[in-house]
Amino acid sequence: MSETPDNAVHSVDSVPADEAVRDSVRAVRAYVDQHRSAFLDGLAEWLRIPSVSGQPDRAGDVRRSAEWLAATLTETGFTTVEIWETAGAPAVFAEWPSDDPDAPTVLVYGHHDVQPAAREDGWHTDPFEPTVVDGRMYARGAADDKGQVLFHTLGVRAHLAVTGRTAPAVHLKLLVEGEEESGSPHFRALTEEHANRLAADVVIVSDTGMWSETTPTVCTGMRGVADCEIDLFGPGQDIHSGSFGGAVPNPATVAGRIVAALHDADERVAIPGFYDGVTELSDAERALIAELPFDESAWLATARSHGTLGEAGYSTLERVWARPTAEVNGIGGGYQGPGGKTIVPASAHLKLSFRLVAGQDPERIETAVRAWLAGLVPAGIRHEIVFGAPTRPCLTPLDHPALKAVAGAMSRAFDGAKIRYTREGGSGPAADLQDVLGAPVLFLGISVPSDGWHAPNEKIELDLLMKGVETTAHLWGDLPAALRGTER
Amino acid sequence: MSETPDNAVHSVDSVPADEAVRDSVRAVRAYVDQHRSAFLDGLAEWLRIPSVSGQPDRAGDVRRSAEWLAATLTETGFTTVEIWETAGAPAVFAEWPSDDPDAPTVLVYGHHDVQPAAREDGWHTDPFEPTVVDGRMYARGAADDKGQVLFHTLGVRAHLAVTGRTAPAVHLKLLVEGEEESGSPHFRALTEEHANRLAADVVIVSDTGMWSETTPTVCTGMRGVADCEIDLFGPGQDIHSGSFGGAVPNPATVAGRIVAALHDADERVAIPGFYDGVTELSDAERALIAELPFDESAWLATARSHGTLGEAGYSTLERVWARPTAEVNGIGGGYQGPGGKTIVPASAHLKLSFRLVAGQDPERIETAVRAWLAGLVPAGIRHEIVFGAPTRPCLTPLDHPALKAVAGAMSRAFDGAKIRYTREGGSGPAADLQDVLGAPVLFLGISVPSDGWHAPNEKIELDLLMKGVETTAHLWGDLPAALRGTER
Repeated sequence: MSETPDNAVHSVDSVPADEAVRDSVRAVRAYVDQHRSAFLDGLAEWLRIPSVSGQPDRAGDVRRSAEWLAATLTETGFTTVEIWETAGAPAVFAEWPSDDPDAPTVLVYGHHDVQPAAREDGWHTDPFEPTVVDGRMYARGAADDKGQVLFHTLGVRAHLAVTGRTAPAVHLKLLVEGEEESGSPHFRALTEEHANRLAADVVIVSDTGMWSETTPTVCTGMRGVADCEIDLFGPGQDIHSGSFGGAVPNPATVAGRIVAALHDADERVAIPGFYDGVTELSDAERALIAELPFDESAWLATARSHGTLGEAGYSTLERVWARPTAEVNGIGGGYQGPGGKTIVPASAHLKLSFRLVAGQDPERIETAVRAWLAGLVPAGIRHEIVFGAPTRPCLTPLDHPALKAVAGAMSRAFDGAKIRYTREGGSGPAADLQDVLGAPVLFLGISVPSDGWHAPNEKIELDLLMKGVETTAHLWGDLPAALRGTER
Repeated sequence: MSETPDNAVHSVDSVPADEAVRDSVRAVRAYVDQHRSAFLDGLAEWLRIPSVSGQPDRAGDVRRSAEWLAATLTETGFTTVEIWETAGAPAVFAEWPSDDPDAPTVLVYGHHDVQPAAREDGWHTDPFEPTVVDGRMYARGAADDKGQVLFHTLGVRAHLAVTGRTAPAVHLKLLVEGEEESGSPHFRALTEEHANRLAADVVIVSDTGMWSETTPTVCTGMRGVADCEIDLFGPGQDIHSGSFGGAVPNPATVAGRIVAALHDADERVAIPGFYDGVTELSDAERALIAELPFDESAWLATARSHGTLGEAGYSTLERVWARPTAEVNGIGGGYQGPGGKTIVPASAHLKLSFRLVAGQDPERIETAVRAWLAGLVPAGIRHEIVFGAPTRPCLTPLDHPALKAVAGAMSRAFDGAKIRYTREGGSGPAADLQDVLGAPVLFLGISVPSDGWHAPNEKIELDLLMKGVETTAHLWGDLPAALRGTER
């Protein structure tokens, strides 16, 4: 990226520009520049392995990918490198203890599996033959997530080179799973099994992005999600709507009424108890969100949508980042073929999901939904409801010292730019780490919206990738002081 | 049927039991008994022709069925017999003018096509090899509708034999279509094309049934139907509910809200103007309906349903016979496969149908639905609505002289039983005849619910079939006097 961040002048979180810091910034950059070419060769080699976890015939490639990473981490200097088997694809665990026994422990999370990709989907180049054009490397997995995992290898080497250390200033652990693109079905079990090995003071997730090339940001949270399937059973078979219509309950009508009852007139979720415990946005957080250069029409274009609609009293970004929601993911019942069919359908079906924010508990939400649903189903209709495994929300308080350290390190990598804060509306396995390990989760990602995750022509901006390397090189040195005094 | 109708003693509409009437009842019955065997042989011959209009490879059989009927009508004595071509299957038209030029004209409607049937669907005998067991003839089309068409041939012969006439006392016309089981797609065009030939003072539809073997009834109306498909378009493709959920309108949610807005808390249709013009049930009609031996648990078993639900203030029979309804026939949108998928769907779809009663106009209903829908769709959602061809409702006033004549003739056939009145909740092409010809439609059917229309092992009760014959034998003689003074 050759552009200067647009808000560099207004930097608030940037570090004092004293001489020692300037020297360190220069030294890190020099080291990174010197090793950039070899690093990118390594990344390209890894990207050539089509580690598509969603395709059973790629299972061997996913394993090769894990082995490649394990070898690279060993070469980097990690003292313990292990391939952890799961009931599905293997994960890679690595550890590099600090020489200071009192150093804090950091666990970095990423994944080495990728989404499917085929040339015919619209790729201009072979998705598994990395191609560099205009400072961007195009390949499946370049941004999501191999590029963002691998920058940690060069980052820790830069940290050591610049500080003259032989071991990192933090106890550094890496956990790189192989099933994230398949919904991480065995991740929770993996973290529970190895909870002692994974124990950390802070978790750094490198599987997200920044606001834009010119607005560097740190993500501070993700929403959780609870989802359910509801089946509604009426007549024993589809029956004639002329003979019986208007006199027996229609499960498709009931499905519609359930959907309509999800929200009130202010588009707030109308399920009793749904908002219990919700961590509300502070005025300071709302002000920070409002500062972001949000362009609603550009956002709508990304959403492929033609209007906004959401909870009254909140902005679009607040709605997707910080407010819980109820969404209809699917609905079906009766005749859906061409033309009409005059029936009262035998059954109808709903798939609902609820995005959750900090303070909401998936088990309490499930109880609330079940009670609410039971009150909506009339006599003569039988219902069933099944919940999937929930994902909890996670949120880093804005005043957490580790967050300040990440923002400070990032600001140095971004030439003193002010680092702003975002959240993710989506949900991810990171919350399992917060939950199982009891450690705060921070997000250090340098991908940008144009990188095209899950889409054809996925790419990573190489200059931004190097800023990720620089950020970690600074961060490992800063964290011990930042975390001093915080409890494990 | 050997059972005596349970309410014979309380007969109201039965004819005065004077000697002449007794003689005529006896004479008709003797004639019918004498010709019963030959008549049933003819019916069996017709039923052997698998005139399934819904199966393209049966088109030749449907034509053979029309030709068989035409030949039989000629043999019966009809002076004009024509096969009328349509864009689909052929209809049969026949005419037998009265020798009294002032006689009223009656048009009998029926159909010669049948539903599909195959032994493996659960038939105990070959569906196209009529089998008589215990006074019932089992075959596809036995009740729906060949048996009920054919009784008119023996009926008019009995009428002539008993009265000594050489031509009927009414100008008798028959229109027997060949596409009723396929939704009568060309019937309206056919009736419009031949409106002059079909002109009549009264239309008798023989394609319905009675309450039960022991409760003879005449149907006085059918509901109409208007149906529509509604498409709701939101995002240009399914989008991630984590990234965008809660901030853009969801078409599946909108579909649910539309469904929920169809009815108010009293289960009345909540579309403004929907009830405008509805012909309300009179107290007398409600009393007649309440007299019927209705067994709600038996009705629920037939409906395969587990509870009743409908417009407040009306009984189940009133709801399905005499009240207009709004029904969801199908709903779909988003992900309907196994498991969950966290999307905001790109689109959702509804199939709605509205049963209409006398006084409601399908065009006005369409206008009302369109206006109501437009008010429910939020900004950001595009909607389309397409209506199918409507079927109008039809209703014979209880005091219509032709209805009294039908009930009187039927009472004589049923040994003086009180004839009660029913309606049909469904809709049929009969309404087109009422509409195009401007003539009242009456329903003369002797099928019973156990006959299994459209189901395996369809049958007709042969004793009831003969009562249909007897009814028409009496009716043609009674109608001229009954209709004297009514306008054409």
